[in-house]
Amino acid sequence: MRTGVWLVGARGSVATTSIVGALALRSGLTGPTGCVTELPDLRGPALPAFTDLVLGGHDVVTTPLAKRAEALAAAGVLPGRLVAALPDELAAVERELRPAPAGGTQADRAAVTVRDLTDFRRRHGLDRVVVVNVSATEPAARPHPGHADPDALAAALAGGDEVLPPSSLYAYAAVRAGCPYVDFTPSTGLRLPALVALAAERGIPYAGHDGKTGETLVKSVLAPMFAMRHLAVRSWSGVNLLGGGDGATLADPAANAAKVESKQRVLGETLGHLPQGGTRIEYVEALGDFKTAWDLVTFAGFLGTGMRMEFTWHGCDSALAAPLVLDLARLTAAAHAAGHAGPLTDLAFFFKDPLGSPTHSLADQWTRLCGFAHRLHAGGTDAAPR
Amino acid sequence: MRTGVWLVGARGSVATTSIVGALALRSGLTGPTGCVTELPDLRGPALPAFTDLVLGGHDVVTTPLAKRAEALAAAGVLPGRLVAALPDELAAVERELRPAPAGGTQADRAAVTVRDLTDFRRRHGLDRVVVVNVSATEPAARPHPGHADPDALAAALAGGDEVLPPSSLYAYAAVRAGCPYVDFTPSTGLRLPALVALAAERGIPYAGHDGKTGETLVKSVLAPMFAMRHLAVRSWSGVNLLGGGDGATLADPAANAAKVESKQRVLGETLGHLPQGGTRIEYVEALGDFKTAWDLVTFAGFLGTGMRMEFTWHGCDSALAAPLVLDLARLTAAAHAAGHAGPLTDLAFFFKDPLGSPTHSLADQWTRLCGFAHRLHAGGTDAAPR
Amino acid sequence: MRTGVWLVGARGSVATTSIVGALALRSGLTGPTGCVTELPDLRGPALPAFTDLVLGGHDVVTTPLAKRAEALAAAGVLPGRLVAALPDELAAVERELRPAPAGGTQADRAAVTVRDLTDFRRRHGLDRVVVVNVSATEPAARPHPGHADPDALAAALAGGDEVLPPSSLYAYAAVRAGCPYVDFTPSTGLRLPALVALAAERGIPYAGHDGKTGETLVKSVLAPMFAMRHLAVRSWSGVNLLGGGDGATLADPAANAAKVESKQRVLGETLGHLPQGGTRIEYVEALGDFKTAWDLVTFAGFLGTGMRMEFTWHGCDSALAAPLVLDLARLTAAAHAAGHAGPLTDLAFFFKDPLGSPTHSLADQWTRLCGFAHRLHAGGTDAAPR
Amino acid sequence: MRTGVWLVGARGSVATTSIVGALALRSGLTGPTGCVTELPDLRGPALPAFTDLVLGGHDVVTTPLAKRAEALAAAGVLPGRLVAALPDELAAVERELRPAPAGGTQADRAAVTVRDLTDFRRRHGLDRVVVVNVSATEPAARPHPGHADPDALAAALAGGDEVLPPSSLYAYAAVRAGCPYVDFTPSTGLRLPALVALAAERGIPYAGHDGKTGETLVKSVLAPMFAMRHLAVRSWSGVNLLGGGDGATLADPAANAAKVESKQRVLGETLGHLPQGGTRIEYVEALGDFKTAWDLVTFAGFLGTGMRMEFTWHGCDSALAAPLVLDLARLTAAAHAAGHAGPLTDLAFFFKDPLGSPTHSLADQWTRLCGFAHRLHAGGTDAAPR
Repeated sequence: MRTGVWLVGARGSVATTSIVGALALRSGLTGPTGCVTELPDLRGPALPAFTDLVLGGHDVVTTPLAKRAEALAAAGVLPGRLVAALPDELAAVERELRPAPAGGTQADRAAVTVRDLTDFRRRHGLDRVVVVNVSATEPAARPHPGHADPDALAAALAGGDEVLPPSSLYAYAAVRAGCPYVDFTPSTGLRLPALVALAAERGIPYAGHDGKTGETLVKSVLAPMFAMRHLAVRSWSGVNLLGGGDGATLADPAANAAKVESKQRVLGETLGHLPQGGTRIEYVEALGDFKTAWDLVTFAGFLGTGMRMEFTWHGCDSALAAPLVLDLARLTAAAHAAGHAGPLTDLAFFFKDPLGSPTHSLADQWTRLCGFAHRLHAGGTDAAPR
Repeated sequence: MRTGVWLVGARGSVATTSIVGALALRSGLTGPTGCVTELPDLRGPALPAFTDLVLGGHDVVTTPLAKRAEALAAAGVLPGRLVAALPDELAAVERELRPAPAGGTQADRAAVTVRDLTDFRRRHGLDRVVVVNVSATEPAARPHPGHADPDALAAALAGGDEVLPPSSLYAYAAVRAGCPYVDFTPSTGLRLPALVALAAERGIPYAGHDGKTGETLVKSVLAPMFAMRHLAVRSWSGVNLLGGGDGATLADPAANAAKVESKQRVLGETLGHLPQGGTRIEYVEALGDFKTAWDLVTFAGFLGTGMRMEFTWHGCDSALAAPLVLDLARLTAAAHAAGHAGPLTDLAFFFKDPLGSPTHSLADQWTRLCGFAHRLHAGGTDAAPR
Repeated sequence: MRTGVWLVGARGSVATTSIVGALALRSGLTGPTGCVTELPDLRGPALPAFTDLVLGGHDVVTTPLAKRAEALAAAGVLPGRLVAALPDELAAVERELRPAPAGGTQADRAAVTVRDLTDFRRRHGLDRVVVVNVSATEPAARPHPGHADPDALAAALAGGDEVLPPSSLYAYAAVRAGCPYVDFTPSTGLRLPALVALAAERGIPYAGHDGKTGETLVKSVLAPMFAMRHLAVRSWSGVNLLGGGDGATLADPAANAAKVESKQRVLGETLGHLPQGGTRIEYVEALGDFKTAWDLVTFAGFLGTGMRMEFTWHGCDSALAAPLVLDLARLTAAAHAAGHAGPLTDLAFFFKDPLGSPTHSLADQWTRLCGFAHRLHAGGTDAAPR
Repeated sequence: MRTGVWLVGARGSVATTSIVGALALRSGLTGPTGCVTELPDLRGPALPAFTDLVLGGHDVVTTPLAKRAEALAAAGVLPGRLVAALPDELAAVERELRPAPAGGTQADRAAVTVRDLTDFRRRHGLDRVVVVNVSATEPAARPHPGHADPDALAAALAGGDEVLPPSSLYAYAAVRAGCPYVDFTPSTGLRLPALVALAAERGIPYAGHDGKTGETLVKSVLAPMFAMRHLAVRSWSGVNLLGGGDGATLADPAANAAKVESKQRVLGETLGHLPQGGTRIEYVEALGDFKTAWDLVTFAGFLGTGMRMEFTWHGCDSALAAPLVLDLARLTAAAHAAGHAGPLTDLAFFFKDPLGSPTHSLADQWTRLCGFAHRLHAGGTDAAPR
């Protein structure tokens, strides 16, 4: 099952790490640490092998992939020896990267994207191409009447309107090209009525939003712990200090707001009430591609006794996100092959703000994910396979 | 369903907090924070109500219960207003406390315990009495041939041998008196072949070991998180700083060893390998009844990138343990009523070192506990109800 | 040397703790923990004894002092036994509290304040009265031509203008009444050219600004440590989570800005450059009168190796501030007695944003403070004693 | 002033980092971050320039220096580019390294060491050679009558006894060869009456003990902070997790004990009492050349209010120690040139367990160090220059 993985933001840190990692896995130069689809509970025949993945993508910048990989190696995100060992493989992916469509109307740019995707699929004889958005976080989208349904959208685009935020324009093109779509960012992406309806019409599965890589991952096990023990969480305050490109983007208050809201959701839904306190994101360039999050939880136990917990998470977002990008591409491809369409709510495990929000408890999300993978491997689905 | 709760170590911090809490709940002076059996997923008709609980117990010390409660209030473990509001209720429990049997042979002391338990049951017209060991942690038991089976044990006791450690002598008496037994400590308790066989013979259910109240509770959600994300935990080091009676006891290296081993077990079994590092317990009197644990976890992500997490837990062990003591008494009483016998492995949720060790993941233990409670409430069991 | 201490904000947490503490010290019910003027290096004959202090003050609220003290005891800030032991003494101070002047022009309110101060001094036969501002933090003052010099100020006040922020109106009245003035808050207070000139004219000493009680205290020893070791601090990020009245006030962005700026100053001046990162103040009501600050410092060592330090400070601001209020009252009174006038820059040890900023290193500030106290005790001064 | 720096343990992590750093500084490839002798308050004409330092040393292992440097680069301790840029310089130092003398009696091995030192001095036309012990920590020395005075020592050595621990044998040889001696480790070194007397006789200055690089550095500013604020420290507990060679050595309980004692001394002497709690050192191989220390301080403020502080220090010991090794070599050489002999107590700033222990406050140590440097630069000394 030859599968294309088309990365929107293909020269960013997450994408570059995904690409180097996929190439290294394919060449047997590294093991699958961090890839959940390689755990015994999830792996199986329905998933495309790493050797079946073909990588490509769009980006607005043009820095050569090899340069980006070297920079990440220098920053401690990647082992330099992997970059040095894979020059031909990186050059091959470089040839599959396209400039992000620019100029003309949104309709024109969508058409270019559709053509890039279909060319990529044809050129490599791929069974399907999964589009994964790993570009920078956008501000919240401005409302537009064209968001309401496919016809309104078609009319607005035909009229030359700038109707969609960039992530949604990619989602639109993906659906039009028959490609499953994964949104790894908190951007709008496919979350507009017009696009949801279009994906349903075309039988396209999609997944999102916002890869769960650090502080929220920890919250998604600690909040259920407090809930299961009937402990009364009074406050939960967090601060995220980020360097790297993501940090700079999120320093923009508009983008920050979207992210922060998605980060606190897990608490309200798991605890049954929203505790006091908030989450802050701050840009600290000196931290480079690493992130430090600190959280303080105050809670009451039996008879009201006050207690507290704090944790610090020092993670490398790219190293945490990249294997999940590959996991999502594999699972979404398998879901498409099995005939799934619409939101893949069983992939909530991967996201801060999962579609359909069935649960925010990591353990419950894991149980759902295992069941989903099991059904894929067993060949069962509600829909006809393709 | 009138249920006795007989506390071994009844004047200790955990027991005193349990007693004050049970009285306060019965009087409607406080809510059930920290009591998991009051969560929607667990509560139901099979459990005895707080108003149906009658408290008693043994202790080697004789400090009046009211004095112990006042000391705990001064230390911030309990609200002083509750102690002040419950003088008659505390006096009533005081009348049900007995000195720990002393003098004579172990057989003599077991006989006194059996008599105290049966008198208590008769005096209050109780359907059953659950014995809960909340006394200080013992050193590991010395082997004795009398541990092998009930006949060898009977012979050894008849011969006047000091064959059992104190926790096991209580477990023996409980079984002989037809009482379910819960071991909230890491002591030997019922974990001897002779006692296991005896409990099976008499149809007695039991639960243990070592209430999971702090650092291990956190480990039991974080370790599965790392496992589910396929992250490679390289080291997990912890230190526990404890004041209070438990701290002083655990400063004894023999007791410390038992506790530490039970604390690391969750890691090996959840992660599939034992990471580097260990757990230390240290006595710091100035911390009083509070405990501070600090853990450092180092782990590798995709392509080997090194990352780390640390957490600090500032908890009050008595406030965390006391509601679980009541939960365990209620659940074990209901299990006994439903005809369960032998180890209650579905209560693993409550313990650092659960009997039968079905799993060390808190989420999986929760799922089992919910199923168990559900079956109790539905009236179903494998055995005939009593 | 009978000395009045007039507290602006006399029913606030800091003032109430200062009052209870002063009374308890006077009665021998407690020791001088936290009072630096009782350390061997500082104590001596020039300072008024605790038994020579007479307390009074203004407040806009009217909650009885005893009620405030009981509330602080319930919150764990004060031992309840002290409040219970001092009913008559608290009632005596209660009689010395006056409502903050209201109504009329600023000139009218200043006149009332001057009269309250002189009445207080006369009523108790005091050698002098030190005015200490411990009221809530104000937003930055709006410029007004009347700030320029004493004449402009007199004219503006005579014209009925609302020319001064409240803290400065108190400072004005203090100077007019011949009282030394201490600003324990980051508010404007005496920092206006008109007031500085007036204090110089009248020979009034004053001290400030912003008591250094928590995170900044720690910074003032850690930043010099990094500097003395020639380590290159790259980023220093902090978050302060506060409940209590101060927290609510500082949630106001205008007040927050003043405080935050004063908190970062120590870094730039000690390190020689301002590292990346900032300090946040957030209001978390559940923390009550306690404050949790977390700071992350990243730094480079030899050959650029990246390292990091983090600290968490869990402090009770009132308990940290109150003894310093007494220290400042004693030192400022002694300075006044010795003939000092103008800014007391040798008291920088006590402040986040010290007047004259001779140094931000706590150790250097300590050396200066010790020298100052030594000179006071030795009777030496540049000016004639009064 | 051409100065030799003879490193005992010359292929260890600290020594290798010192060597690479000195070569890089000499070549202008790096700046002096971490070198306190390059701060404005300390630098001056009395100190040998980096270009005047010639490096050599002994080691029991024979791994090539370049290999050790590459390993440190791979571990993130050194930038690989520096190692790559200095092949000839490293080869030149390699030629100055000698195997640690082995075989024969201690007297024989001392003679070899003396000869190696004098050859080194003559070969390079050096004004003097400073011997710096950066080898692994030894267990406490066993008492021997030969430790009492120079004659007893001479007799014991002549008799073929193994009378001295290795660090002391090096100190003995250094003194015999007329070389100033610095002990950067907690080992015995020169701290034996016989050696102290011998150094006095020969007019040799020496410094030590135990470089202050991490947790103790922080303690030496925080403990004075608590003392200056008259806060009552109740407990101070610490844990040090170390990988690398030092960690493995210190896992030996005997060496651990020496180090731990030296780490707690600062508290007792600064606070005036020894708070509860202790310091642990644990070996965690996965941490590599980095060290994580965590400390919890609990303290009482005014009226007994309980508060707490914790800090985590993530440092690279080699990167912290190496520049101090160069600083100490420079300062000790200048002291020797200026005619100083005996213990250099003004260098306490650099050590956990300083000779003569004049003070454990970092700020006070800094003041002394600045005065010492100032006098050196001014040419003043009590003794005649050489």
